[in-house]
Amino acid sequence: MALAFYDLEGRDGRRMSPFCWRTKYALAHKGLAATVKPVGFSEIKSIGDGSFKTVPVLEHDGNFVGDSWKIAIYLDKAFPDTSPLFPSMDALSYAQFVEKWLFTQVFTAMFPAMVKQVHDHARSEDQAYIRESRERQLGGMTLEDAEKRGAEGLGAMNIALGPLRSKISDTPFLNGNEPGYADYVAASTFMWARAIYPQKLFAADDPVVPWFRRVLDLYDALGRSSPGYQIYP
Amino acid sequence: MALAFYDLEGRDGRRMSPFCWRTKYALAHKGLAATVKPVGFSEIKSIGDGSFKTVPVLEHDGNFVGDSWKIAIYLDKAFPDTSPLFPSMDALSYAQFVEKWLFTQVFTAMFPAMVKQVHDHARSEDQAYIRESRERQLGGMTLEDAEKRGAEGLGAMNIALGPLRSKISDTPFLNGNEPGYADYVAASTFMWARAIYPQKLFAADDPVVPWFRRVLDLYDALGRSSPGYQIYP
Repeated sequence: MALAFYDLEGRDGRRMSPFCWRTKYALAHKGLAATVKPVGFSEIKSIGDGSFKTVPVLEHDGNFVGDSWKIAIYLDKAFPDTSPLFPSMDALSYAQFVEKWLFTQVFTAMFPAMVKQVHDHARSEDQAYIRESRERQLGGMTLEDAEKRGAEGLGAMNIALGPLRSKISDTPFLNGNEPGYADYVAASTFMWARAIYPQKLFAADDPVVPWFRRVLDLYDALGRSSPGYQIYP
Repeated sequence: MALAFYDLEGRDGRRMSPFCWRTKYALAHKGLAATVKPVGFSEIKSIGDGSFKTVPVLEHDGNFVGDSWKIAIYLDKAFPDTSPLFPSMDALSYAQFVEKWLFTQVFTAMFPAMVKQVHDHARSEDQAYIRESRERQLGGMTLEDAEKRGAEGLGAMNIALGPLRSKISDTPFLNGNEPGYADYVAASTFMWARAIYPQKLFAADDPVVPWFRRVLDLYDALGRSSPGYQIYP
C-alpha cells in the first residue's frame, strides 16, 4: 500500500491549511501512515494530472483524491478495517453541521484578522498570489486594512463559539467521550490560526482552551509538534 | 402499557412549549401512542408528586420522568424495539450541539420578539405568572418594550440560522435523508413560534421554509394539525 498526501506548507514548515489538518487527523484517527508531501500554493497545480486547485490531495496506489470530505469518505471505504470516521449518517451529518456553523459564523469572522498573517507566513514565492486572491476575496480591501479591522471580527468569533464552548463543557470532545470528525473539523480552524496568528484567540479561562489542548495532544501530539505559535501549552 | 405525557397548553389548545414538542416528536418517531394531558403553567405543580417545575413530564406505568432529554433517553431504554432516537453517541452529541447552537444564538435572539405573544396566548390564569417571571428574565424590561425591540433580535436570528439553512440545503433533514432528534430539537423552536407568533419569521425563498414544512408533515402532520398561525402552508 502506497499512501501519500499533499499538505500545504508555508515558511519554516508551517502547515497553513485547515483542510489539510482535517486529513492529517483523519489518517491518524485510522492509524494510517502516509508519506507527507509538502507543497506551496504555487505547486498545487503540479500534483497528479495537474487538475487540482486545492489541497489536501491524497495519493493511494496511483489514485488521486482531492477535497478533505471526499478523502475522509474514501479512507473509510478503502480501509474498512480501521476505525471509521463516519460510523453512521449521524456522525457525517454532525461533522457537516459543525462545518456549516464554522463557515457561516466563525471562519468568516476570523478571516480579516488572520489574512495578513496568512500572507506573511506563506513562502515568499506564494505571497503575490495570496495578496492578489485574498484582496479580491475582501472586495478590494488591502490585507493591511483587513488586519486593522480584525478585532471586530474576533469579537464576533468569540460570540459565535457559544455552541462549541457549551458542548465541550459537558463532554471532553464534540463527539462525546472520544474525538471524532466533528472535533477535527472544528479544531482544524484553530490549527490554522495556531500556525500563523501570533496572538491569543481565547481568554485563559475559556473552556475552548482545554478542549483544543486535548486535540493538540492526540496521536502523539500530532498538532502540538507542528510549527506554530506556542500560545496554548 | 400506560403511557401519558403532560403537554403545556395555552389558549385555544395552542401548544406553547418547544420542549414538549420535542417529546411529542420523540413519541411519534418511535411509533408510541401516549395519552396527552394538557396543563397550563400553573398546573405543572400538580403533576405526580408535585416536584416538577417544568413540562414535559412523561408518565409510564406509574413512573414520572421530567426533562425532554431524560425522557428521550428513557424512551430509548424502555422501548428498545422501537426506532431509536439516539442510535449512537454521535446522534446524541449532534442533537446536543444543535441545542447549544439554538440556545446560544437563535432562541435568545428570538425571545424579545416572542415574549409578549407568549403572554397573550397563555391561558388567562397563567398570564400574571408569565409577565412577572419573563420581565424578571428580561432584567426588568416590560413585555411591551421587549416586543418593540424584537426586530433587531429577529435580524440576529436570521443570521444565526446560517448553519441550519446551509445543512438542509444539502440534505432534506439535519439528520440526513431521514429526520432525527437534531431535527426535532431545531424544529421545536419554530413549532413554539408557530403556536404564538402571528408574523412570518422567514423570507418566502428561505431554505428553512421547505425543511420546516417537511417536519410539519411528518407523522400524519403532527405539527401542522396543532393550532397555530398557518403561515407556512
